[in-house]
Amino acid sequence: MNAPTRSPKPPNTRATSLAGRIDLSHGAGGRAMAELIDRVFRPAFANPFDSRGEDQAILPRPAGRIALSTDTFVISPLFFPGGDIGSLAVHGTVNDLAMGGATPLWLTAGFIIEEGFPIADLARIATSMGEAARAAGVAVVTGDTKVVERGKGDGVFINTAGCGVVPDGLEWGARHIRPGDAVIVSGTLGDHGVAVMANRQGLDFETSILSDSAALNGLVGAVIAASPQGVRAMRDPTRGGLSATLNEFCQTAGVGMLLDEAALPIRPEVAGACELLGLDPLNVANEGKLVAVVAPEAAATILAALRAHPLGADAAIIGAVTKARFVRMRTLVGGERMVAWLAGDQLPRIC
Amino acid sequence: MNAPTRSPKPPNTRATSLAGRIDLSHGAGGRAMAELIDRVFRPAFANPFDSRGEDQAILPRPAGRIALSTDTFVISPLFFPGGDIGSLAVHGTVNDLAMGGATPLWLTAGFIIEEGFPIADLARIATSMGEAARAAGVAVVTGDTKVVERGKGDGVFINTAGCGVVPDGLEWGARHIRPGDAVIVSGTLGDHGVAVMANRQGLDFETSILSDSAALNGLVGAVIAASPQGVRAMRDPTRGGLSATLNEFCQTAGVGMLLDEAALPIRPEVAGACELLGLDPLNVANEGKLVAVVAPEAAATILAALRAHPLGADAAIIGAVTKARFVRMRTLVGGERMVAWLAGDQLPRIC
Repeated sequence: MNAPTRSPKPPNTRATSLAGRIDLSHGAGGRAMAELIDRVFRPAFANPFDSRGEDQAILPRPAGRIALSTDTFVISPLFFPGGDIGSLAVHGTVNDLAMGGATPLWLTAGFIIEEGFPIADLARIATSMGEAARAAGVAVVTGDTKVVERGKGDGVFINTAGCGVVPDGLEWGARHIRPGDAVIVSGTLGDHGVAVMANRQGLDFETSILSDSAALNGLVGAVIAASPQGVRAMRDPTRGGLSATLNEFCQTAGVGMLLDEAALPIRPEVAGACELLGLDPLNVANEGKLVAVVAPEAAATILAALRAHPLGADAAIIGAVTKARFVRMRTLVGGERMVAWLAGDQLPRIC
Repeated sequence: MNAPTRSPKPPNTRATSLAGRIDLSHGAGGRAMAELIDRVFRPAFANPFDSRGEDQAILPRPAGRIALSTDTFVISPLFFPGGDIGSLAVHGTVNDLAMGGATPLWLTAGFIIEEGFPIADLARIATSMGEAARAAGVAVVTGDTKVVERGKGDGVFINTAGCGVVPDGLEWGARHIRPGDAVIVSGTLGDHGVAVMANRQGLDFETSILSDSAALNGLVGAVIAASPQGVRAMRDPTRGGLSATLNEFCQTAGVGMLLDEAALPIRPEVAGACELLGLDPLNVANEGKLVAVVAPEAAATILAALRAHPLGADAAIIGAVTKARFVRMRTLVGGERMVAWLAGDQLPRIC
């Protein structure tokens, strides 16, 4: 945590209370900021690596190459079915590290809080972050808090940066993809984006749709244990959805893909909500799914490893890499269509 | 850089131009975002570690313990005399690492941009960040871009997280401070805060006051070369100024300090501006200064090492650590006064 300070004669004599609201003093390096850190953040993130008042956390020498990632979360609403900005901020960065084959170890957390934000909501978010971090086996080791005036932010924005280690010899990346490889997704598509959009628009479905927000490092660990060299590339299809991820893969590798619509795992209620909202589930963000492009001879082993993990029960081989330079899909009615890239600002502030 | 995507049929057919403004599509994972990254960020941050489309940067195994730090920058105005939010975002995190004795290596960059922000200004900020990073010998290795609706942000907010290495055997921290130690500052106090406040309030001084925003890792390297074990603790006195830093040190170590006002390096024009603005220069933020508490027998060596470096020419021993548990100062007129902690929200959004 950055250096807290306090005044022997604070201008505002009430202590920071969980029933109160954020004011500018909570970001000014004064007593209120120190109290906020001590009452809200430090208990939520408790771990042996806490930087404890110094401006940097000092951590053990890691046994491997370093992976670094950063992601800023501006999702609206802050609380949504299946998660909140706090757990999402942990899952998003843990997953960005895991997709490179890294074991996530440490996170940093940077908060931009709008003046007037309820401290109880901030505590709920911090608690959720801490729980998500512990569940994922990572530690939030240092942080920073800034407060902006009312109307210069929107509740809370959170940046998390992550540091992990990559075993020597493990080199995943889209550049390794080649024709003949199998394309695997770890589970149902579109759950996060549809849950958030439905909640934002006040839609109420008979079957509640929950975000799939989850940390995937355990699932990736299962794949590494099963066939570390079988994986060409792995990515989590967040903003832009599956279609964006697959098109990026193909552009980088100079290849194409042919998908099988019948093989795509999509919940019926998500498919129905997409119809209603005018969305293509392939363009909708996921926050707890991975796409793996794998060597054909490793596909069955990796699929089995995914399905044996609770987060991969619905994993499926959804297609294969081709030489065609386009992502196409055999449809349910027997035709073929392009899987196009996301066209612009379809889903603002989805993460 | 996070995964860019593009559409073969973008809804907005004009290409992202440096003469244009940010819209929501620049954060939506679409063609506009890919163009923004390719035109504005990638050239500015060019370095061999660029994550190049993957969601994480993979970096060499470091030779030491890891230091991690994060800082979010919400400064207003974005451009100020002596710097801008881009260079400040590099200097701030480089310095937070260096204050722990770490050699800063890699930065991540997370942007929250308000819809309507001029792309030319964003490019100027990114260029400034890249220049500051190269000058400091660090690389911006991965990043993330989010766009929020007009009125939900304030131009640009930037988070930087930093990763560095700490040599084995180097253990600085406020807990090591003891009575008899010397207190050293590396140069003049209050320049950053006064430059920003004067600019914000439209004040025009005869002598222009510039922010001291600078990367201090070179200066810290000179201290480490001279006397690595002579340093007890080091910190950069940013939000809350020198008084906050010294009070934090004393609270952590259970000691006090006695300063000598006559020894404090303060520019006459900064002292004058503080009078006019009603500020105590000891409470005003610095962004290119360090405070070192050092063993008495190492003080002369460390002072000489600081003074031999361009960023430490005005370094001075300003006092000593006492058993008294208060920070006090012998004034110019021969009295003694308390050096109080910052009282609340004196200088919002100074960094």
